[in-house]
Amino acid sequence: MLSRFYIEEHVREALKEDIGFGDITTENLAGENNYLEGFLNTRTDGVLCGVEVFKTVYDMLSKDIKIKFYFKDGDIIKKGDKLADISGPAKELLMGERLSLNYIQRMSGIATETAKYQDAIAPYSAKIVDTRKTTPNFRAFEKYSVKTGGGALHRFNLSDCAMIKDNHIRLAGSITNAVTKLRASISHAHKIEVECDTLEQVKEALECKADIIMLDNMSVEMMKTACELIAGRAIVEASGNVHLDTVNAIASTGVDIISSSAIVAKAPTLDIGLDI
Amino acid sequence: MLSRFYIEEHVREALKEDIGFGDITTENLAGENNYLEGFLNTRTDGVLCGVEVFKTVYDMLSKDIKIKFYFKDGDIIKKGDKLADISGPAKELLMGERLSLNYIQRMSGIATETAKYQDAIAPYSAKIVDTRKTTPNFRAFEKYSVKTGGGALHRFNLSDCAMIKDNHIRLAGSITNAVTKLRASISHAHKIEVECDTLEQVKEALECKADIIMLDNMSVEMMKTACELIAGRAIVEASGNVHLDTVNAIASTGVDIISSSAIVAKAPTLDIGLDI
Amino acid sequence: MLSRFYIEEHVREALKEDIGFGDITTENLAGENNYLEGFLNTRTDGVLCGVEVFKTVYDMLSKDIKIKFYFKDGDIIKKGDKLADISGPAKELLMGERLSLNYIQRMSGIATETAKYQDAIAPYSAKIVDTRKTTPNFRAFEKYSVKTGGGALHRFNLSDCAMIKDNHIRLAGSITNAVTKLRASISHAHKIEVECDTLEQVKEALECKADIIMLDNMSVEMMKTACELIAGRAIVEASGNVHLDTVNAIASTGVDIISSSAIVAKAPTLDIGLDI
Amino acid sequence: MLSRFYIEEHVREALKEDIGFGDITTENLAGENNYLEGFLNTRTDGVLCGVEVFKTVYDMLSKDIKIKFYFKDGDIIKKGDKLADISGPAKELLMGERLSLNYIQRMSGIATETAKYQDAIAPYSAKIVDTRKTTPNFRAFEKYSVKTGGGALHRFNLSDCAMIKDNHIRLAGSITNAVTKLRASISHAHKIEVECDTLEQVKEALECKADIIMLDNMSVEMMKTACELIAGRAIVEASGNVHLDTVNAIASTGVDIISSSAIVAKAPTLDIGLDI
Amino acid sequence: MLSRFYIEEHVREALKEDIGFGDITTENLAGENNYLEGFLNTRTDGVLCGVEVFKTVYDMLSKDIKIKFYFKDGDIIKKGDKLADISGPAKELLMGERLSLNYIQRMSGIATETAKYQDAIAPYSAKIVDTRKTTPNFRAFEKYSVKTGGGALHRFNLSDCAMIKDNHIRLAGSITNAVTKLRASISHAHKIEVECDTLEQVKEALECKADIIMLDNMSVEMMKTACELIAGRAIVEASGNVHLDTVNAIASTGVDIISSSAIVAKAPTLDIGLDI
Amino acid sequence: MLSRFYIEEHVREALKEDIGFGDITTENLAGENNYLEGFLNTRTDGVLCGVEVFKTVYDMLSKDIKIKFYFKDGDIIKKGDKLADISGPAKELLMGERLSLNYIQRMSGIATETAKYQDAIAPYSAKIVDTRKTTPNFRAFEKYSVKTGGGALHRFNLSDCAMIKDNHIRLAGSITNAVTKLRASISHAHKIEVECDTLEQVKEALECKADIIMLDNMSVEMMKTACELIAGRAIVEASGNVHLDTVNAIASTGVDIISSSAIVAKAPTLDIGLDI
Repeated sequence: MLSRFYIEEHVREALKEDIGFGDITTENLAGENNYLEGFLNTRTDGVLCGVEVFKTVYDMLSKDIKIKFYFKDGDIIKKGDKLADISGPAKELLMGERLSLNYIQRMSGIATETAKYQDAIAPYSAKIVDTRKTTPNFRAFEKYSVKTGGGALHRFNLSDCAMIKDNHIRLAGSITNAVTKLRASISHAHKIEVECDTLEQVKEALECKADIIMLDNMSVEMMKTACELIAGRAIVEASGNVHLDTVNAIASTGVDIISSSAIVAKAPTLDIGLDI
Repeated sequence: MLSRFYIEEHVREALKEDIGFGDITTENLAGENNYLEGFLNTRTDGVLCGVEVFKTVYDMLSKDIKIKFYFKDGDIIKKGDKLADISGPAKELLMGERLSLNYIQRMSGIATETAKYQDAIAPYSAKIVDTRKTTPNFRAFEKYSVKTGGGALHRFNLSDCAMIKDNHIRLAGSITNAVTKLRASISHAHKIEVECDTLEQVKEALECKADIIMLDNMSVEMMKTACELIAGRAIVEASGNVHLDTVNAIASTGVDIISSSAIVAKAPTLDIGLDI
Repeated sequence: MLSRFYIEEHVREALKEDIGFGDITTENLAGENNYLEGFLNTRTDGVLCGVEVFKTVYDMLSKDIKIKFYFKDGDIIKKGDKLADISGPAKELLMGERLSLNYIQRMSGIATETAKYQDAIAPYSAKIVDTRKTTPNFRAFEKYSVKTGGGALHRFNLSDCAMIKDNHIRLAGSITNAVTKLRASISHAHKIEVECDTLEQVKEALECKADIIMLDNMSVEMMKTACELIAGRAIVEASGNVHLDTVNAIASTGVDIISSSAIVAKAPTLDIGLDI
Repeated sequence: MLSRFYIEEHVREALKEDIGFGDITTENLAGENNYLEGFLNTRTDGVLCGVEVFKTVYDMLSKDIKIKFYFKDGDIIKKGDKLADISGPAKELLMGERLSLNYIQRMSGIATETAKYQDAIAPYSAKIVDTRKTTPNFRAFEKYSVKTGGGALHRFNLSDCAMIKDNHIRLAGSITNAVTKLRASISHAHKIEVECDTLEQVKEALECKADIIMLDNMSVEMMKTACELIAGRAIVEASGNVHLDTVNAIASTGVDIISSSAIVAKAPTLDIGLDI
Repeated sequence: MLSRFYIEEHVREALKEDIGFGDITTENLAGENNYLEGFLNTRTDGVLCGVEVFKTVYDMLSKDIKIKFYFKDGDIIKKGDKLADISGPAKELLMGERLSLNYIQRMSGIATETAKYQDAIAPYSAKIVDTRKTTPNFRAFEKYSVKTGGGALHRFNLSDCAMIKDNHIRLAGSITNAVTKLRASISHAHKIEVECDTLEQVKEALECKADIIMLDNMSVEMMKTACELIAGRAIVEASGNVHLDTVNAIASTGVDIISSSAIVAKAPTLDIGLDI
Repeated sequence: MLSRFYIEEHVREALKEDIGFGDITTENLAGENNYLEGFLNTRTDGVLCGVEVFKTVYDMLSKDIKIKFYFKDGDIIKKGDKLADISGPAKELLMGERLSLNYIQRMSGIATETAKYQDAIAPYSAKIVDTRKTTPNFRAFEKYSVKTGGGALHRFNLSDCAMIKDNHIRLAGSITNAVTKLRASISHAHKIEVECDTLEQVKEALECKADIIMLDNMSVEMMKTACELIAGRAIVEASGNVHLDTVNAIASTGVDIISSSAIVAKAPTLDIGLDI
């Protein structure tokens, strides 16, 4: 999902943001022959995410920095684990420290949060997925982190899956009208999802053969009824009020997908540090 | 801090990220003559931040969308407050909903978190400031939000203030060497900050006339001693282990500045919604 | 599909490409007070496409150019039709002529070609769709033109629909393996299409519940058999050897979708001119 | 004409266009250790063009893909010829297939079409050249292809040669006025071309010492007369109504240059494929 | 030469360069209701250049700033002249002061320097032209300034005129070989210039019908002889050792063009100030 | 200060500016097997600056060009010194000649001019610094050159140091108001400088504990008095009327910093050439 050329472009801008006109401290204190060694470690348990991005930051600063990782994206890491060895010219090693950590801490934070949710519903077949509530211009990194944490993904943006919400229903007149109109207009390669607040809406969506039916802010009881009603004829997605302590009950209703903005928007960064 | 041309550039990229090849749902359901009205409201208490950015998202989508805000950046908002009225062509109104909210929810979340910290130290003169632990390519928005929430700001990036950390001390041989070397190399318009772990380091930094002395991960007792020792001859910054429940004690030691990555990196988004 | 900010960005680059260091002829011959009037007309029958893009070219050159179109995208235009009136400062009017025509001629050419194919299969319910064989960095314009010409669209790029081709089957071991693996990895919001060369493959794809089955380079007879076999349980797409004189026969087999690269890659430009 | 840094920039954007958020099929089916081999072949006769661009696409996706070409740009290729061997990691090999082909098919298509025109006038000294009717933001690739196909080039854009057309004549009052004014304003390093519809205009252009005289939409007879009249005192360019079956007659009139938009704008792509 | 969209793009980058994370002084001191008035004046005599660019800087900062110029590009301005009135919001007015002046001071400086050279050769028909010795990524502004100052322009870059220098002669074997080879390869719309050190080279260039003959570093005597020899059969350009006190003598030899890097590379900025 | 990724980005744009659609002379005359050797030398005395940038230009054109420098940035070079050997493919070697020289000539010119000023004040402790009067979008290169020439640097842009000028004083009511307001609003990591025209202002600035006091356009006598008055309690900067023949007297007053726009804005390029 994160192509090399895409990472490089993002990192280049971020380096400009963090370095500005230069690192006035390090550039004036680190001599040409100063080399440093260090290691990356974690101060909390979690799921590692962002190895390639971390390496790209340093790769763009200097070709002489060596990094050897002992874990890979998706691996469970424990407080105190040495994640990687790093060595090279002092100047670039210090200049890239903050940015490389900013990426890996955020990405691992999201992967870790996702894993907590996914673990909480382990007995069921449901999958946690993300939403479009992401940080502007950072979505690809966030989605990659969700997947790395064991979650699945929702649509990437407004163009790869149709999603009929209440306002769309109002514009079209009814769910049926909306689905019919979309079926005739969008690509045959794209699916149609309908957001439903009531069981009547679920029935209507089912009748128009919506590919995905989203149960929006329904009670656990109501979700159970909806799942029985749908009976495998559409993918069922639960949305709304998804927290670590509600997610298991939601999964138990038989839904296929549970979408949560919290795994991205409210995930704390993971405490990973560089000891040099 | 957030110039118009800067916001526009960020928003343009973010629109491409979220819209991709088009909003296949809305573009096919909203007719040319469909207009909608709605209002922006908050479902939690907090501090509003991001009004201009919110408006820019819509301004770049259509010149026909009217937005009237009843609050401005920095205002305290209460659960249920109507923040703004919005009306215009249905198509663009729906297409911009998610992105405009993504900005304002994140920015208000940070402003709100900052305000909590600043409130917690209200009896003291200390100010909460941010750090460089920000989301790559989103820093200007995050710093603006901290300021809007009543916090102050630390340096923007590596080029506008020298900060001598443990590795720099090792490279230079001593704090004194490092400060001397920097004083001779950096701009007279820039300050020098020294990160100190011990009172000996504090004394050395003070003797070299460091502009700012950072007390790194010290106990409250030790910070108090350091402040007495410094006695106004340098700006004193506390760093490390700053949480909502520790910050008041830290402020009570007499430090001028308390830097916290948490107000940005761990701030949850604020629950602001668009009802159409 | 073509958002205003997207068109503007493309046009800006194209203006740089065509104008370079300036229009040395016009800038030196057109005085500040020279105004011109003209009209856009078509010298061939076809389908108009690119009105907004045409206007954007001029809008970026000068705010003083007035353009009034008498037709809109998707309208059938006949040789000799006056499409639009245009007037304004001579300098910018002449500077933008070639580029605005380059867009509208190409876009109308594709719309026209698509309409020919779609007309040729009018008696059937099948739809002509495009492919990913597009001009690099011009795809959005080409896809928009296909839709304007009455065609439907295939996936936008590699990320919005899975398409299992022969090499993927080889990598996965079998169609069944490939579909199973993808079902577990890709977003529930995305479909899976399987490219089949034989009826055995069609059966296998059907059994794994592929969303779309592509009949690749099959004879008309074989396609008919495949459609009967599939019997509405998957969307059927025909591909390969699609020409204006074969497309009707293909549509007659009962396929839902006929994909053709020719409607974009081999469409001649439409002869539209500006008479000033 | 196509510098390395220019190709890379275009390809990077095109990769983003075609890959979007990732190749969801291949990324999930190709393992880290899957390697593939294949070869590039042509299914039609033509002129090869785009070798460097093809290689750049793969080079930007992976450093591990090996490509060995057996032909070079400008070589005549015959249906069935193996053009190149290619091998490397399955993932990137499949991800780059469509885009690399999109470039080489289009570029070879234009080179092939140009060669047909140039061959058709082989007995004469005239050269086929392109025009500014190119695909927006793809011109450098198209011009390079024309040259590769044996054609010559017209001006690159509006800034490198003055071209006086009917509207310019109207603005200046006469051809003589226009040429005089331009001679005094434009760089001495640039030429002046005058578009003429009549023999009177040809005479006037000749008297003002226009560097190039374009005979616009003249009959073959009239062109012959014009060439005799000009007698080598200016470069003579024929334009308008240039097709494969008219071009020989046009060349026979003695013109130096025949400009044709068709070699770019109406050239079909060449059928080159990758067999893996 | 300086299109609106081109100026805007350059100014946007320059604003980012000069404003960075914001104007910390002005943003904190200028209230929303502070308005200022001022005027632009010149403290030295010269030629004004950069009016549009100056206005664009302010236009991009705020739509509320009013600027009225009393002179236009190319006008002679005298020490003490009021060039323009300016008024608007204090914040943006002060934020744009330095950048708008940086453009207009440099551009007017070049125009002024060019005018001095052109004035020095007023009795002769020769024209002063620039060279490619320009500031990287500022060439269009510099060339525009030369033209505004009454000079003419040399080629824009390496692609719009062929220039055969000593190393090219060495590569081709002789001037004749080089010209012949280029005539067959470059566009008929482009000229060929030959750099000559000796009269023998001038003769050879003349025989191959070079369009422009550059007399490189020749003595005034030798240039006179060369001009007589050429006798109007090619454009004659003098180059090398061009200073304000040598240029008149050079012009007196009868050359058509005198190229000078000094008018750009050594032009001091013009002292224009903003009094608020 | 000049990071590798920053240089590359600037050079890429500059290559596009200078090469355009290709070097039509060299590309047609230099064969694939033509190699050239040459050396870089200086025709004037000065200070070398721009070695990395020079190398980057060639590095982006070809991986086969070898450059060996005998001097490094900051070294004093004498007329006739061989600065570097260069060899490689003729095509790219000639294509990059002008641009690589444009960078190194300008940068060395600024370094040389700065060194002249710094030498002129050698007996004193004062340092020459630059200003924000730089070439738009070329500032980082200019500042780096000033530092290379032995000067020091002023603030980078409007965001890294507050500078209170006359208009700011007017807006705030007084220097005291302005400093107080800024102290409360800007980062503790940033300094405050006050521009003073009179000794009264100096006193007021001193009382508010301004970090830097700028003596603007004061006489030498007045500066001396000001320095005595300040007595080391603030950094003292002299500004205005700084020329090579006034700078020594200014330094003799005891100021710490002398800011001069002339070292950048009026520095002539240094005459460095490439002999091939």
